[in-house]
Amino acid sequence: MTEKLSDTGRKTMLEPLLQNGWSLDETRDAISKEFVFADFVTAFGFMTRAAIWAEKWDHHPEWSNVYKTVNVTLTTHDVEGLSALDVKLARKMDQIAG
Amino acid sequence: MTEKLSDTGRKTMLEPLLQNGWSLDETRDAISKEFVFADFVTAFGFMTRAAIWAEKWDHHPEWSNVYKTVNVTLTTHDVEGLSALDVKLARKMDQIAG
Repeated sequence: MTEKLSDTGRKTMLEPLLQNGWSLDETRDAISKEFVFADFVTAFGFMTRAAIWAEKWDHHPEWSNVYKTVNVTLTTHDVEGLSALDVKLARKMDQIAG
Repeated sequence: MTEKLSDTGRKTMLEPLLQNGWSLDETRDAISKEFVFADFVTAFGFMTRAAIWAEKWDHHPEWSNVYKTVNVTLTTHDVEGLSALDVKLARKMDQIAG
């Protein structure tokens, strides 16, 4: 079952993301990152790959796209805050964006 | 060359869109619409099809997605307002969303 990140989880799993361009929105316990690509095709290609993982894991981002920029926000509505699923999807997105 | 919609163009081309769920943001001369689908796969499928047309026509939307909802805003930066390209893409999106 999905649970909110523990204090230990935050230290070990969240901290590396925050040092890799993600920022914490404490008001709603979510993480966000802006990804900038070379062009629209690359940006939307990133979204397409991420979308497939999101659906596979049944955990979906809030995201927007303007040409070559994609803004992503991750949080877990079921626990009203960050869970391991957000960490997993954030890491996957970083990997895809490469 | 892309030109801003004329008064006639607004009447003949924009009006039907406004009667089909699009709304006009007069402050920046843009049109917006919220599309709601059955699920994430259908919503992202819509985005994928629209993305290919957008790239083909070299005219890209500002859009966001949260699960089954897609919010789209169209405007033409080159003319600082609405052009026939926005009408063309809006119609295509309506057709795809079907």
